[in-house]
Amino acid sequence: MPYTSPTTDIRFILDRVVGFEDVAATERFAEATPDTVEAILTEAAKLCDQVLAPLNRAGDTSPARLENGVVRTSPGFEEGFRAIAEGGWIGLTAAPDHGGMGLPVALGTALNDMMSGACLALQLNPLLTQGQIEALEAHASPEIKALYLPKLTSGTWSGTMNLTEPQAGSDVGALRTKAEPTGDGTYAISGQKIYITWGDADFIENICHLVLARLPDAAPGTRGISLFLVPKFLPDEAGNPGRRNDLRVVSLEHKLGLHGSPTAVMEYDGATGWMVGSENGGMAAMFTMMNNARLGVGAQGIGVAEAAFQKALEYASDRRQGKAGGSGAIVEHADVRRMLTAMKADVFAARAIALACAVAIDMGRATGEADWTARAALLTPIAKAFGTDTGIAVAEDAIQVHGGMGFIEETGVAQYLRDVRVTSIYEGTNGIQAMDLVARKMSDGGEAMFRLLDEVETAAEAARSELPDLAHVVWSAAETLRESTEWLVAQPLDDRFAGAVPYLRAAARVLGGHFHLKAALVENGPRRALARFYITRLLPEHAALLAQVSVGADGLYDMSPEDLAFA
Amino acid sequence: MPYTSPTTDIRFILDRVVGFEDVAATERFAEATPDTVEAILTEAAKLCDQVLAPLNRAGDTSPARLENGVVRTSPGFEEGFRAIAEGGWIGLTAAPDHGGMGLPVALGTALNDMMSGACLALQLNPLLTQGQIEALEAHASPEIKALYLPKLTSGTWSGTMNLTEPQAGSDVGALRTKAEPTGDGTYAISGQKIYITWGDADFIENICHLVLARLPDAAPGTRGISLFLVPKFLPDEAGNPGRRNDLRVVSLEHKLGLHGSPTAVMEYDGATGWMVGSENGGMAAMFTMMNNARLGVGAQGIGVAEAAFQKALEYASDRRQGKAGGSGAIVEHADVRRMLTAMKADVFAARAIALACAVAIDMGRATGEADWTARAALLTPIAKAFGTDTGIAVAEDAIQVHGGMGFIEETGVAQYLRDVRVTSIYEGTNGIQAMDLVARKMSDGGEAMFRLLDEVETAAEAARSELPDLAHVVWSAAETLRESTEWLVAQPLDDRFAGAVPYLRAAARVLGGHFHLKAALVENGPRRALARFYITRLLPEHAALLAQVSVGADGLYDMSPEDLAFA
Repeated sequence: MPYTSPTTDIRFILDRVVGFEDVAATERFAEATPDTVEAILTEAAKLCDQVLAPLNRAGDTSPARLENGVVRTSPGFEEGFRAIAEGGWIGLTAAPDHGGMGLPVALGTALNDMMSGACLALQLNPLLTQGQIEALEAHASPEIKALYLPKLTSGTWSGTMNLTEPQAGSDVGALRTKAEPTGDGTYAISGQKIYITWGDADFIENICHLVLARLPDAAPGTRGISLFLVPKFLPDEAGNPGRRNDLRVVSLEHKLGLHGSPTAVMEYDGATGWMVGSENGGMAAMFTMMNNARLGVGAQGIGVAEAAFQKALEYASDRRQGKAGGSGAIVEHADVRRMLTAMKADVFAARAIALACAVAIDMGRATGEADWTARAALLTPIAKAFGTDTGIAVAEDAIQVHGGMGFIEETGVAQYLRDVRVTSIYEGTNGIQAMDLVARKMSDGGEAMFRLLDEVETAAEAARSELPDLAHVVWSAAETLRESTEWLVAQPLDDRFAGAVPYLRAAARVLGGHFHLKAALVENGPRRALARFYITRLLPEHAALLAQVSVGADGLYDMSPEDLAFA
Repeated sequence: MPYTSPTTDIRFILDRVVGFEDVAATERFAEATPDTVEAILTEAAKLCDQVLAPLNRAGDTSPARLENGVVRTSPGFEEGFRAIAEGGWIGLTAAPDHGGMGLPVALGTALNDMMSGACLALQLNPLLTQGQIEALEAHASPEIKALYLPKLTSGTWSGTMNLTEPQAGSDVGALRTKAEPTGDGTYAISGQKIYITWGDADFIENICHLVLARLPDAAPGTRGISLFLVPKFLPDEAGNPGRRNDLRVVSLEHKLGLHGSPTAVMEYDGATGWMVGSENGGMAAMFTMMNNARLGVGAQGIGVAEAAFQKALEYASDRRQGKAGGSGAIVEHADVRRMLTAMKADVFAARAIALACAVAIDMGRATGEADWTARAALLTPIAKAFGTDTGIAVAEDAIQVHGGMGFIEETGVAQYLRDVRVTSIYEGTNGIQAMDLVARKMSDGGEAMFRLLDEVETAAEAARSELPDLAHVVWSAAETLRESTEWLVAQPLDDRFAGAVPYLRAAARVLGGHFHLKAALVENGPRRALARFYITRLLPEHAALLAQVSVGADGLYDMSPEDLAFA
């Protein structure tokens, strides 16, 4: 299953579309020179194309399995992980104090995109560790940082996130896992956690679990949750893995996809843990980590979309059926060409949104300016939801392009759909992303969105002289989104929530139009043709979506669940 | 996995929405009285809910497998098949001369919908046999009819369709299987066929293959194809299975879904066959059968959508997360309610379109009127594509409603997506359905579509007094579709094909609005609330779709396949 990392596209978007030069111009990221970026992308592409992509199929066909309490991993995954770790890729964006490279999140996002396209099941392992590194950097004590960060950054140890319990999924506040102080500064953690990605692996020396739990007498709900670091093996005085902690993998889930990524049910039975952050401050610490993980998951969707698109294009370029012009392959049929071009156009839009979000994160960190932080916060749910929805939709279309072959597992294209399907669910379902967008991220009265729309409209105005028709469509769409936003922020939450998902998608459509228009101005060739395709054929969807938004919650509860059940 | 056949909904649509009373008023279908319809639906529901639905999971987890040349089927499938056969369900719409019940296709479509919701993998078996019965009724010699039809109708034997070869999928004309006259009126059939659904089964006495093949010196392409009946066992003089024919199952495919339905690679090695229809008339015979099979596949999508919706609604009504009002279950969250209501509204729309198509088929057969035949031909690709697209979309949303549980195979909801995924591919991909709609089905200059739109607009006009706002939206949408159709029929084929898929979906959206409006007029309760949801939130999509249509093929080929490959 050949896969080519989209370095040209990523480089183009960074340099010409989302303003990465501003990041490189900051003192904090002064090392991210064009030469460094080029070297990073080139080396990452070698890893992804030559080492990771060849593992993807075996991860699916030889799932991770639990044997006598140890998770045996898929063939080649150990070697793949070693290559990731030895290349220093886990610590790409981590702080240099503990072995990280300190490079921008924009490059980390590009790496996540490429690694996900190559082998999503394995990429999840370093992604989770990256999240743990960020949480520890922000909230852990100096002793914990000194001990754990170098080992996590080097890939000697790996990290997991333990949020979910059977009764506490999207509603994290309902969790029951307990943390009892032992008197020596540690805590005894007891409870069951589910959906623990890479909860164990036979090729990693120690697994470090970040566990949300409740102190005795903690307040109910999210205000009574604290965060604990609970390693599989307790470090001895030299910092090496010592005594086995009181935790175990109960079982692995049998999933639709991502078979190479072990998803564990974890049992903690008085396991020793160290608090990270403050008492009852667990949610704040978790959110630090989740916001960036959400962008990472968006990048997963985009990476899988890229891989599925490449596979579909290759098949369509080879397969001969019927009276097609040109090469005689089905890529010459109008409907197949329409599908492939739409896939390509949406991957570009989703990737540009994700990289723009990453640039905003970097600028926020480098400059401390609140506008950048607000921009990053605003774009994160859009990047996550649109990236993963695009992953699913493009994988669906890739199956369709393959016709009957798409339904045969050996073809490999169905795996993309099975693997990527969960990305719209984990790290907060896309419905929750949309609620986050219209509530929390618009608690500023829509200010961050309006500032973004100002930029979109200004850019469209500037494009009118060269591309009047396209510029006008983008400008009008932005104006429609502005009106819809003005209406939305004046509504009570129920009305916002009822239209949240269509609103988020409409915003992504408009931003996609904005970034395509920028690309079209740079190059009067394929990129302009792709932009024209997107702006004339895909962007119009925003109006239908905003029509849904405008209804609010009106009539939504007129049917009871019993009414819906009539059959 | 409980499943409740949607008899109330089907009955409502037949009686109040799509004019089934006109069918029952014909001489041909005089037996289809309200009492008979009620009895049929009630008995079919018992079969589906109590016998077939409980088999669905085992079909997935214990796939059919090939053992020493015989296909061993999933646990319980034999008993399920016996129940279908003994109830007389295979011959529901078959002519009474050879044991059929001669009931309307509208009831057959309702049955297919219900059986597909219960157990799609098993339902495929009688569906293929029904197609074979239709082909033999229309094209076979009296001797073949007399021998085969009673056995097929009773389920003693079963039927398959053999079209596809590795190099001949959507392009049937590229097939190479040979048929040599033997001199005794039979033919020696040689070649390989792939994707043969239920190509063998250990619980069926004889499998009758309908095989497309070429006579010596036949013209290339579709004009040189004939149709042959090739049984697994050659009937002896008493009509019982005799000598083994020279054909075999080479292998079974490993598929994304439908594991309970064996998909065979068949090898014919000079097997004895009988011609059905005329020399080189194979495509015509196959089309008779395929048009009705296409409606049957549309019903498959609707049935699976119904089952997935029911499962999602049940989960959402039980699962408690966060601060939901009412029952406290997630069905009270605005976004979950939005998803579930949209699923319900789309299932209604797709089902009404399919049953309207079936009514048109029945009226065409009963009256011989060309307008009805043209209506049936026009609606068939819409029913197939929109029914199966709805099946996939609703199964996707059902997973999303389940959150993390949706990705776990034991939950069972992912199976619906895996099973239904192929329905947009087989019996002509949905892209081919759309091309059929804008080319062949509009070779009348759009007359059949304009007649349908006249009805939609007249009904909307009549609804203005009671439901002015909804009626206006439906009327306007029909008018927009009319304008788009007028433009479309004046374009060359390339421009039609470029927008064919969005055009078909827009037409389905408008028809869905039409049928929902009819339902809203009948009942000022949940059905009106559902109609309001559809018309205000889902119908607006038609405009975005028709915007795509209006671009035609403009710019579609500006990027070469190599341009698309840039990464």
